Amino acid sequence: MQTRALTDPAHLTAASVELLDRVRSTTPLVHCITNSVVTNFTANVLLALGAAPAMVDITDESGLFAGVAGGLLVNLGTPTPEQRAAAREAVAGANAAGTPWVLDPVAIGALPVRTALAHELVAGRPTAIRGNASEVLALTGAGAGGRGVDAADTTEAAADAATHLAATFGSVVAVSGPVDLVTDGVRTARLANGDALLTRVTGGGCALGAVTAAFLAAALGTEHDAFTATAAATLVYTVAAELAATDETGRAVGPGTFAVRFLDALAAVDGARVTERARVAAGAAGDADATAPAAVVPA
Amino acid sequence: MQTRALTDPAHLTAASVELLDRVRSTTPLVHCITNSVVTNFTANVLLALGAAPAMVDITDESGLFAGVAGGLLVNLGTPTPEQRAAAREAVAGANAAGTPWVLDPVAIGALPVRTALAHELVAGRPTAIRGNASEVLALTGAGAGGRGVDAADTTEAAADAATHLAATFGSVVAVSGPVDLVTDGVRTARLANGDALLTRVTGGGCALGAVTAAFLAAALGTEHDAFTATAAATLVYTVAAELAATDETGRAVGPGTFAVRFLDALAAVDGARVTERARVAAGAAGDADATAPAAVVPA
Amino acid sequence: MQTRALTDPAHLTAASVELLDRVRSTTPLVHCITNSVVTNFTANVLLALGAAPAMVDITDESGLFAGVAGGLLVNLGTPTPEQRAAAREAVAGANAAGTPWVLDPVAIGALPVRTALAHELVAGRPTAIRGNASEVLALTGAGAGGRGVDAADTTEAAADAATHLAATFGSVVAVSGPVDLVTDGVRTARLANGDALLTRVTGGGCALGAVTAAFLAAALGTEHDAFTATAAATLVYTVAAELAATDETGRAVGPGTFAVRFLDALAAVDGARVTERARVAAGAAGDADATAPAAVVPA
Repeated sequence: MQTRALTDPAHLTAASVELLDRVRSTTPLVHCITNSVVTNFTANVLLALGAAPAMVDITDESGLFAGVAGGLLVNLGTPTPEQRAAAREAVAGANAAGTPWVLDPVAIGALPVRTALAHELVAGRPTAIRGNASEVLALTGAGAGGRGVDAADTTEAAADAATHLAATFGSVVAVSGPVDLVTDGVRTARLANGDALLTRVTGGGCALGAVTAAFLAAALGTEHDAFTATAAATLVYTVAAELAATDETGRAVGPGTFAVRFLDALAAVDGARVTERARVAAGAAGDADATAPAAVVPA
Repeated sequence: MQTRALTDPAHLTAASVELLDRVRSTTPLVHCITNSVVTNFTANVLLALGAAPAMVDITDESGLFAGVAGGLLVNLGTPTPEQRAAAREAVAGANAAGTPWVLDPVAIGALPVRTALAHELVAGRPTAIRGNASEVLALTGAGAGGRGVDAADTTEAAADAATHLAATFGSVVAVSGPVDLVTDGVRTARLANGDALLTRVTGGGCALGAVTAAFLAAALGTEHDAFTATAAATLVYTVAAELAATDETGRAVGPGTFAVRFLDALAAVDGARVTERARVAAGAAGDADATAPAAVVPA
Repeated sequence: MQTRALTDPAHLTAASVELLDRVRSTTPLVHCITNSVVTNFTANVLLALGAAPAMVDITDESGLFAGVAGGLLVNLGTPTPEQRAAAREAVAGANAAGTPWVLDPVAIGALPVRTALAHELVAGRPTAIRGNASEVLALTGAGAGGRGVDAADTTEAAADAATHLAATFGSVVAVSGPVDLVTDGVRTARLANGDALLTRVTGGGCALGAVTAAFLAAALGTEHDAFTATAAATLVYTVAAELAATDETGRAVGPGTFAVRFLDALAAVDGARVTERARVAAGAAGDADATAPAAVVPA
């Protein structure tokens, strides 16, 4: 693994294209424990992209299944008692089997049950943590907490917290926002793709956690590490969002049409489109240059 | 608050436009405890309209959250034991904090668990009650009960029951049907907007409960009371349905396309469209004139 | 009931058209106990087709409701403890009342909780069993088990298992795949309609179980038996999928657009389209001719 390559935006884009192709050729089985609001959309996002979703969220099945799945998502959006137990079981199963897993600590901070569970699960050292700025801050004990799934804090305000979390738990941390930030505590990438319509469709953030699990699964056995896979998932997902946000005449679409077009775009997006549109900046964590959020990487 | 204004259809339409704008400018946080069939659609309806949904339906979180949310919806469509406990907790939290809340007694009557829960919760004096005619009748102990979510009774057959419920519990009661009826026991509005396609999309009724909670939240601190806010939610929602029901060429669309266009219409609908299309009649409850269901209010 | 007619593809197509019309004219109430991923899509599929969905999946309600519903679906995709108890109650209620019911043993084989439940429930002699080849094999104790909802086995590999299951439990068995197989142990139909996009939308298989329950309900009191009703449900559903898979210009659509168009097609499909497109072969179970999967039945 070359450090230069890993902090080179053009290389990150190329790796994203490779991993997208690999998701499609290997159809990773993605085990999802997620909230009741977004299960349908999450499954459709994975199917559109070329992965295979399976929602197994009961005890006495989730641990076993996490051991055979390619990747696991644990999203805490509507954590019923049964789901909380299933999540614990799944994390243990994933860790025992070496299955990469993603923690999405939805709306933690002010809500006590999920906050306690998130702190417990993060100690299991997720491969990746995905959240908005408020959730990432809350996971470090900082921040005011969001109001539900809204981020009351900006992505850059969570940059230090993300680096700290990454270093503490050995996780890649992805912070969603107008500019997405991905860090493993050593390297940081900022990705400026996407569209605000993603925030007008429920699951726009949550489904990215599942896509991240799919990319982590696809990266196993390749030269690409979890940092690269997490950034790649974000890049492909947000480029697809851009493709979906305007119709054939270039006019912005409404949120209902966007959700439909987004699934179509996830199925259709290819290396050429990802490369052409990628707006990625990367560098060492804390590197001043890396904070340029909208650096355009020429194709 | 002027009685004349509140029973003047033109004024009701103007208030609806004001409250629509206020939903968009204040992005009320709407706490939803709702059924597993419609969570996704409900969240997308709120997001499209400009409100912020949050589904918090577990115990030890729902009471706290109802205290900080702008409005609460309790929908009894798939009331698991955990959700039933969370609903009780949320209603207590909402009442303690003064959060307006909506009860949607889905399919009560023949089904014993939800019927008992609806009778228990209504004693907590919801700000608004939304249901079809069969559900409203069942909540007063009358009617034959529907078969699932279908209304076996007509809206007008439930008019007296609605007035009685409103007077008993201090609630605004909204009865959905081809003509929607809204009453607070003193005033009654009838709204003749909408499209039958709303009954071909699951959640077409349920999501209106969440939108009503959003309008109740937006009305706090304004001159508009719960009666006006509930009627406004119905008017904006049903006008959006009309806009969605035909395509650019004026041809009726199928139910799949309708659901997509409805979300687009909720995002796009503005005061001009609401005013132009409003078909509202209002008067004192029991007023003969008020029973003219399709009175057209000139723009 | 004429044996010839029942193994005559043209007659099967004609019966399908009759039953489609009857679904629309009788609006059967379909009681669904199904997984959290597909509840919304399943309800919308039933509404689009002209049936009335009701998701009643809690104890102390599901048994009672199964007794008054026209048909029942028990789908084991996300079987929480409460749903498992509700499923047992519903099956008992359906059997006591003579309500036809469908078992969909989603992803059984490797997953122990649902596998045990499927074996328990199948002993209650479902009217129909619907699954992919891996699930049908697993229900007989054979097969390697799928990975989640994917079928690792082909439809024809499950033909003998389907015949065996049908004979053992008195059920019609429907095996989904590129060619769908329906058997009651004596007669077998193979249906070659459909589109691969159905596998790119979550619930593409699960919702067919609910549609089968709707057709079984519609067939009660007619000359058409459960074998015919199950084959009819498959035929109408897969013809609608074909209509949805290409746009007005004949171009293949993406999975997001397909799901929307599929609901539109279920609402619009009529006897002429079903007859024109039906690709059905039927004969005695084990009949060599019957294995010709793509026999075209002339309109």
